[in-house]
Amino acid sequence: MLLSDMSKPQLCEFKKTEQKKFNEYKAMGLSLNMARGKPCSEQLDLTLGLLDAVHSDSSLLASDGTDVRNYGVLDGLPRAKKMFAQMLGVDPSEVIVGGNSSLNMMYDTVVRNILFGSDGESLPWGKLDRIKWLCPSPGYDRHFAICQSLGIEMITVPMLSTGPDMDMVESLVESDDAIKGIWCVPMYSNPTGITYSDETVRRFAALNPRAKDFRIFWDNAYCIHHLTDTPDKLLNIFDELKANGKEDMIYIFASTSKISFPGAGVAAMAASKKNIDYILSKMTIQTIGPDKINQLRHVKFFGGYDGLTEHMKKHTEVIAPRFRAVTDALEKYIKPLGIGSWHTPNGGYFISFDSLNGCAKRIVSLCKEAGVVLTAAGATYPYGNDPDDKNIRIAPTFPSIEELKTAVKIFCTAVRLASAEKLLED
Amino acid sequence: MLLSDMSKPQLCEFKKTEQKKFNEYKAMGLSLNMARGKPCSEQLDLTLGLLDAVHSDSSLLASDGTDVRNYGVLDGLPRAKKMFAQMLGVDPSEVIVGGNSSLNMMYDTVVRNILFGSDGESLPWGKLDRIKWLCPSPGYDRHFAICQSLGIEMITVPMLSTGPDMDMVESLVESDDAIKGIWCVPMYSNPTGITYSDETVRRFAALNPRAKDFRIFWDNAYCIHHLTDTPDKLLNIFDELKANGKEDMIYIFASTSKISFPGAGVAAMAASKKNIDYILSKMTIQTIGPDKINQLRHVKFFGGYDGLTEHMKKHTEVIAPRFRAVTDALEKYIKPLGIGSWHTPNGGYFISFDSLNGCAKRIVSLCKEAGVVLTAAGATYPYGNDPDDKNIRIAPTFPSIEELKTAVKIFCTAVRLASAEKLLED
Repeated sequence: MLLSDMSKPQLCEFKKTEQKKFNEYKAMGLSLNMARGKPCSEQLDLTLGLLDAVHSDSSLLASDGTDVRNYGVLDGLPRAKKMFAQMLGVDPSEVIVGGNSSLNMMYDTVVRNILFGSDGESLPWGKLDRIKWLCPSPGYDRHFAICQSLGIEMITVPMLSTGPDMDMVESLVESDDAIKGIWCVPMYSNPTGITYSDETVRRFAALNPRAKDFRIFWDNAYCIHHLTDTPDKLLNIFDELKANGKEDMIYIFASTSKISFPGAGVAAMAASKKNIDYILSKMTIQTIGPDKINQLRHVKFFGGYDGLTEHMKKHTEVIAPRFRAVTDALEKYIKPLGIGSWHTPNGGYFISFDSLNGCAKRIVSLCKEAGVVLTAAGATYPYGNDPDDKNIRIAPTFPSIEELKTAVKIFCTAVRLASAEKLLED
Repeated sequence: MLLSDMSKPQLCEFKKTEQKKFNEYKAMGLSLNMARGKPCSEQLDLTLGLLDAVHSDSSLLASDGTDVRNYGVLDGLPRAKKMFAQMLGVDPSEVIVGGNSSLNMMYDTVVRNILFGSDGESLPWGKLDRIKWLCPSPGYDRHFAICQSLGIEMITVPMLSTGPDMDMVESLVESDDAIKGIWCVPMYSNPTGITYSDETVRRFAALNPRAKDFRIFWDNAYCIHHLTDTPDKLLNIFDELKANGKEDMIYIFASTSKISFPGAGVAAMAASKKNIDYILSKMTIQTIGPDKINQLRHVKFFGGYDGLTEHMKKHTEVIAPRFRAVTDALEKYIKPLGIGSWHTPNGGYFISFDSLNGCAKRIVSLCKEAGVVLTAAGATYPYGNDPDDKNIRIAPTFPSIEELKTAVKIFCTAVRLASAEKLLED
């Protein structure tokens, strides 16, 4: 029976039962965490061999003869560039391989454009009265935090099952030259888990921005992070852009943070040759070069792009059951009551849960009371402001299956309790 | 006989002989490099064991239980903080341990202050009409490049044997609130090799800047890079600043780039707790954290600060003979002629050579013709402009002793030839 179909006495009875269950959980004094997209230790163990890939007897020369221990090579080792080029569907000359954090590369890219402009011709964004940014939401809180920290005005764009609402994106980007960027997680989107449709990608690649220095920030963090044998497919936006002569409009980012080690992986960005040359001309002032030994470790351990994708199957084995533990519980405890919706993703790191309107904060707060930490309600929206107070990001990878099963039961109880409270209020 | 005491016919004869020698060198078609402060491969071999310090059977938990493979720990591992704290004479709570590049930390620190201000209270430097910076010169070209790239107006301050001309520093810093910073390499200065005197350090620590957000950028890159058994001693400026209640006025930087591996070392910065807290509040938007596995490698391999300083003796063994090869040749081929001056350093990476006025560019150009690459003349001054055209930075560490001996002979011949040309002109 749907919760909304219950009579008031039925609802009161339901709430009482849920409250009792909730109190029992609370009394257990648990400490569980489904807040951040962190790999679990079983995943980290999969790449322990990476630590042995470069040792004191290894050749420490790159394929071009560079001693990887010394200074230099601003854009990364040739083999690392090739590996990321294949991952991102670009040419190695269109890649910069950096340090351990793609977030850092994104941040630095925004800051570079604020300080110097995006192309050496347009005004530095920092010289403008205001900078606006499109934020498909629910989205990634750390993307939004970059904008907020830098005083960039964020405009929420709804996420549909096909990607961002492209009617809105087109209409805004093509009419307002203060709009300089948009955050996109095009594959297994953070947090909704959907992959942009071919039409969405083509519409992105055909944008006619009012601001000629408008840039798409294409954070392809999960491009090889599949959870099933029937993965989503993402159209290669760089090819589409090139076909339209618009390849300067995009920056693409990725990393091995969730393939090797989150703290000690390798990050990369891709862009048109023109953009890459411009970026390197600024980066050469900022640093002498990235950690090439760690890049060598990665290309030696994985062997290349094929090795990377093969390795990802091991991650799938570890985390797919965790995702199932969450979706199974949601199917069982939430779906019959009609008090929430979610997409069962084919990849990525999150399940995005939409409660009844006005319940998300209460659910997160109840979970916290019972020892289950979730990403703050609202975090998936610019300024932490979810207008419907309904979206909650669930990150199932870090806890053990047993912990997760308990945490999800508590979560479902919190959803049921908060929904009953809400319906009784109305 | 001093070259300046020679008669014109004597000079002509001298020049002819040097020209002949020079042509012989040129005919050898050599390719030698004394341009950058790069460790040689014998030095890099000293820390090969670092690559084995963390392997697949190692404990990957930090001293506080953190899994170093995963996300987090923005300010670095506790043991790494302790090691750098001892190196820099501060408390571990006053340290942030970062990625592989102290230059990157310096750049980011300047940029952070441009975007956000230095303390959360003062105006962002980027909101000011102009930003000025003091640049003791000869100095480090990459410091100056940061200022130039960011549109910061550089003011040259002469380097004396005791450090920067403090009369000039005080008078400028205390009268002009557009002056926001000064670059200092206080120990074994790049390139002059001198160490700031106690009086210089005390005067820095007693500055009363007109701009309350003025900052000393104290790049202590060579603090444990001694070349002799009688090393220089640098007064601890942080203690002096604290005694004066002025500890917010400084950022201190260092790295293991020239201790372990230039491309894969660990960098750190130190500052007052107030500054550190402010910096971390901004850094947390930029990155999730540094490569902690590489930090663990370093603390395990070196064991701590004592291990670091012990290890440096091995570097001394490798590079001290290289420095001697240069200074011996200068003593032999230049000194008797009175056509150049230099300081024989007790540490660091450079020998700073001053030719007769107006000869540096010609010397560097002659060396290039004969296959010896030197740092561009002028590079040690803001805007690449050495007003006397006399300073040349010699970096003796990278070439082999044999190569170096040849390169220095060519250099001395170029100095002798250019000096004779100059004196004949006058």
